[in-house]
Amino acid sequence: MILVNGKAEDRINITDRGLQYGDGLFETIAFRQGVAEFIDAHLQRLLAACERLKIPFSQLDLLHKELETVYQSCNGSDCIIKIVITRGSGGRGYLADSNIVPTRIISTHTMPNYPESYSKKGVSVRFCQHKLSENIVLAGLKHLNRLDNVLARNEWTDTSIAEGLMFDQSNHLIEGTMSNVFIVKSQQLITPQLDKSGVAGIMRAQIIKMAKQQGLTISESTLTLDDLTNADEVFVCNSVNGIWPVNSIDDIAKTYTVGPVTQQLQAVLSKVEH
Amino acid sequence: MILVNGKAEDRINITDRGLQYGDGLFETIAFRQGVAEFIDAHLQRLLAACERLKIPFSQLDLLHKELETVYQSCNGSDCIIKIVITRGSGGRGYLADSNIVPTRIISTHTMPNYPESYSKKGVSVRFCQHKLSENIVLAGLKHLNRLDNVLARNEWTDTSIAEGLMFDQSNHLIEGTMSNVFIVKSQQLITPQLDKSGVAGIMRAQIIKMAKQQGLTISESTLTLDDLTNADEVFVCNSVNGIWPVNSIDDIAKTYTVGPVTQQLQAVLSKVEH
Repeated sequence: MILVNGKAEDRINITDRGLQYGDGLFETIAFRQGVAEFIDAHLQRLLAACERLKIPFSQLDLLHKELETVYQSCNGSDCIIKIVITRGSGGRGYLADSNIVPTRIISTHTMPNYPESYSKKGVSVRFCQHKLSENIVLAGLKHLNRLDNVLARNEWTDTSIAEGLMFDQSNHLIEGTMSNVFIVKSQQLITPQLDKSGVAGIMRAQIIKMAKQQGLTISESTLTLDDLTNADEVFVCNSVNGIWPVNSIDDIAKTYTVGPVTQQLQAVLSKVEH
Repeated sequence: MILVNGKAEDRINITDRGLQYGDGLFETIAFRQGVAEFIDAHLQRLLAACERLKIPFSQLDLLHKELETVYQSCNGSDCIIKIVITRGSGGRGYLADSNIVPTRIISTHTMPNYPESYSKKGVSVRFCQHKLSENIVLAGLKHLNRLDNVLARNEWTDTSIAEGLMFDQSNHLIEGTMSNVFIVKSQQLITPQLDKSGVAGIMRAQIIKMAKQQGLTISESTLTLDDLTNADEVFVCNSVNGIWPVNSIDDIAKTYTVGPVTQQLQAVLSKVEH
């Protein structure tokens, strides 16, 4: 089911700034067993990002109502719900109308059907040649300017590779094409700082929170290829798939075991009340 | 008039990757007195950019036919025609279907009605606080990931300011929000090199070509605020508005005269056969 501004509809006007300029934001939310997982964190991130981009949207009550409507259409099945908020239609070129009304697009999608082994035994990943753009204002946001992710993800079609790791213009490790990344070195968790590029994922924030609650040492830092090569454990994560341990990176002929810190976080995550 | 994939239609499916990811490109072409100005340069740039982004579009014959159709709808009036090419609909997240069919959107727009003084006496410009993203693969392309331009252009609504100048993450001068920029210093023309950010405009290329034909010294180089402050002449340009001399930058209390090199290029441009 798709709702555009609350109406069952699968199209938008071509004047929408989401299409013309990627002038908008999105969230991808897992609905499992009737629960919209991490819904408060998703909606808070969305509102904070609207504020950063000065998109005049704050109607959470509307979103909650529409999420419920589209979820009902899934008839109790688990599903993914994607929310897109654009600045709306109109304006003179890049300049938006002062009274512009943002567009809401809420759509349901099939829950991806990844093998259970991805969580238990880990995944093979690769390095993407395409490097992430750098911009201190856009860094962290889940905005609609996603050409970097598109170009990186389309570098491979080999289905045995579950994810691609992305680096920034200075070759710092930043994230996966659809995930954040953590490494463990000497019992310490480190995830790339996202002050210049990358998406600050909901699961990333959840893992940082859980790690602190567990008394683990966790830091956000600049990470290089060497840090990755020398890591004891590596995992990628997102709010739909949870934590996937990385078991190999072909590009550097490196393998990792599914280590104790990764397993500890997976265990804690499985008990989180959404 | 709007044509979507050749049909009169003003909407697209929300699954289009142009909306979901800004996964596409555009061109803005001035039709004046029955002539599509710089049409070959626009279409060549579009095809080259499709190739760079691996968007499988190359049907220039279709575009020519559709441009003619929408132009006829203007009934002989001058107009702007915008071409948007997206990668199309579908795929699994960022990964596109291997057999994806690009979307063509061709639309007519009213010719902007700027005062004649903009070309003759020049314009006031400002500095944008928002800095351009840096990415060596995306630099130069007129792609749909335009949040930088949107955020920069929405910093001001004062209609006495015609354009905003944008800098990159390292504070190098790159372009205007909808134009390229040139400076003249000691009879030498310099325009920012666009290897990390910016759009390589059709008018920019035309001016470089004309300058060489005129025997002027022209270079593409890194430019700083100091270079701008110390310039003898400054102008901005795009393929719709031609050359606008810059007569003042309030932020640095600097004024410029409409100098001889700028006037020479304007005169040559006015005689170019499109």
